[in-house]
Amino acid sequence: MKYAIALLLATVAGPGFAQAVVEDFKPSSLNQPGQQFPQVNSQGYARFRITAPDAQNVKVSLGLGGRGGTTLAKAADGSWTGTTAGPLDQGFHYYHLTVDGGTFNDPGALNFYGSVRWESGIEIPAQDADFYALKDVPHGHIDQILFPSPSTGTSRRAFVYTPPGYDKNARTRYPVLYLQHGWGEDETAWSNQGHANLIMDNLIAAGGTRPFIIVMTYGMTNDIKPGSPGGLAAFDIKPFQTVLVNELIPYVDAHFRTLTDPRHRAMAGLSMGGFETKLITATNLDKFAYIGLLSGGTFSLDDVNRTPGFKDKVKLAFVSFGSRELDGGMRGPPGGPPSDPRANAAAIKQAGVNSVFYVSPDTGHEFQTWRRSLKQFAPLLFRD
Amino acid sequence: MKYAIALLLATVAGPGFAQAVVEDFKPSSLNQPGQQFPQVNSQGYARFRITAPDAQNVKVSLGLGGRGGTTLAKAADGSWTGTTAGPLDQGFHYYHLTVDGGTFNDPGALNFYGSVRWESGIEIPAQDADFYALKDVPHGHIDQILFPSPSTGTSRRAFVYTPPGYDKNARTRYPVLYLQHGWGEDETAWSNQGHANLIMDNLIAAGGTRPFIIVMTYGMTNDIKPGSPGGLAAFDIKPFQTVLVNELIPYVDAHFRTLTDPRHRAMAGLSMGGFETKLITATNLDKFAYIGLLSGGTFSLDDVNRTPGFKDKVKLAFVSFGSRELDGGMRGPPGGPPSDPRANAAAIKQAGVNSVFYVSPDTGHEFQTWRRSLKQFAPLLFRD
Repeated sequence: MKYAIALLLATVAGPGFAQAVVEDFKPSSLNQPGQQFPQVNSQGYARFRITAPDAQNVKVSLGLGGRGGTTLAKAADGSWTGTTAGPLDQGFHYYHLTVDGGTFNDPGALNFYGSVRWESGIEIPAQDADFYALKDVPHGHIDQILFPSPSTGTSRRAFVYTPPGYDKNARTRYPVLYLQHGWGEDETAWSNQGHANLIMDNLIAAGGTRPFIIVMTYGMTNDIKPGSPGGLAAFDIKPFQTVLVNELIPYVDAHFRTLTDPRHRAMAGLSMGGFETKLITATNLDKFAYIGLLSGGTFSLDDVNRTPGFKDKVKLAFVSFGSRELDGGMRGPPGGPPSDPRANAAAIKQAGVNSVFYVSPDTGHEFQTWRRSLKQFAPLLFRD
Repeated sequence: MKYAIALLLATVAGPGFAQAVVEDFKPSSLNQPGQQFPQVNSQGYARFRITAPDAQNVKVSLGLGGRGGTTLAKAADGSWTGTTAGPLDQGFHYYHLTVDGGTFNDPGALNFYGSVRWESGIEIPAQDADFYALKDVPHGHIDQILFPSPSTGTSRRAFVYTPPGYDKNARTRYPVLYLQHGWGEDETAWSNQGHANLIMDNLIAAGGTRPFIIVMTYGMTNDIKPGSPGGLAAFDIKPFQTVLVNELIPYVDAHFRTLTDPRHRAMAGLSMGGFETKLITATNLDKFAYIGLLSGGTFSLDDVNRTPGFKDKVKLAFVSFGSRELDGGMRGPPGGPPSDPRANAAAIKQAGVNSVFYVSPDTGHEFQTWRRSLKQFAPLLFRD
């Protein structure tokens, strides 16, 4: 459950010294239309304002790394306001309110699915935000599909990013990346929180990657039962592997113009999605030649040696983390033995694997790490 | 603003007599994963439960037609529970909580964009729910597109439903329906609240309609400014007309396999979207031959006579309402003269217009009316 907890915590960007708060707060880019709060300033502080005139106490879960969030203070007009005690990491953060002991979302902010519920979201403008900005470039589409899933007895939802030009080039076929969300998230995460489509649109416009399709579906197939929020304990990969490999891939290959050989199919995932990626690809190297684990484990020399065909078939073993995850000693997948991801990446490279290791500066177990990881990963794919 | 207000109110299904509440409550189908509340019973009562141990008062906006919602009562364990004083109309309802004077969403329910914010939603199972149920039939896709909009200086979002088979029949071209949401809603409404895609999938599977494309975009282009929630006062159709006619239609015709003559293009909308449909089609009969106003005004004989080309060019003038809207005297578009929609529909039919008038039984200014209206409207389209 280490990963699940890490997902809920924001970390502090700066060292411990006090700094004056600059009063240039602006509404967060993720606010609901017309909403003035929450706000962020140029230093990365967040300020919250909630109207609840009869409330006894109002708190925001977002604060300095696990140290209890931000307590709001009541003003004469019945509003509650508070500012984080320091700057937050750049990028996206989940949060929620506690109002008189109850958990609610901030009515000013948009909602994003994380920790098995729709949470409020806030965006701390990042220095490198340009790579996922909405720009005047050709845009791909995101198709919502409902694919038949006999193993789960329903039609399941997935999102399929098709790159700009897909509609025009009626005979061109494309490689496919299967891209998974983390624990408590769902198939909306990579588009809504991750801006995967905009990252691809911008990369493609700049000639930075080969155009390819991205497929995103729900990976907690085995996990959600009414009344029991999912966990990683006793994780069984089979139900999701069946959905992905036996049901989704054939549907995508039948309904989209894909290249269907393993050298044109990749799988990657963040956090729990990386854990799933490692498990599924290990027994399906005839289907996936490119693999990415984003804050979701590593490949040790042992992994490589005991996985038949790994050295021959895997064209890329990409592993990434946020720098704060490494600082914090988060090493390896949940439940697995602790190991040094950087040393692992070097060891398998030495052994002949095309191993790429990326560390996102000054970010933790959050979406800014994964946005940057996708930007690094995409250009390395399907280069045979 | 009459329409905006009507959007927020639920109405009572039954007459005034008291009935025993049947204790067969089940979680609403629109709850967040694993959430037990809100619940609905077989009679259409809704029951809410909120955890907020230190709160002073908790209320739900949903209740009997404008009579103040439902007040929850506190139990010893810190939870607040309450049941509506009577059955609610079948179908979808927006609602929110008031906790100690603040407006919040129900953490148990999914959110839907209405009244210029993301609101909680609840579904009262309808007798005719089968026509928008997720079934084991071929499913169309919903594409999220970002189309260039020079007039608004950005890339704008739209959703495009493509029918089952669209991917397979690479030479088939399809008619297109442009379908608009109501005041305070956005381009997500017809899919999320309306199930437009499932209605089409089911109709097509049963041979009940010709397959066609549906395009849904944001229609409050002129209306939303930070700090000032939109209204219908001083409504100017030009900004949205420019986006729809000059920017979106050319993009759709360039990126999807459409039939581009007016006899293969329709426009319809609900509430404010019907108002927009009437204004835009009136000056663009060279582009749209099929028109639908769903709880969004009527075509009077006067309208027909003073619109050049109406009688020759319009192949269908479809008007619908929920029965409770007619009972309540809601007649004609906001700001317009009151007129009897049924008499108007009969008068223009007499004058030679293919006029179809539909009334949804026992529903008001809510999505069940519009789901049923789409089901009635679709089979009448593109029948030349």
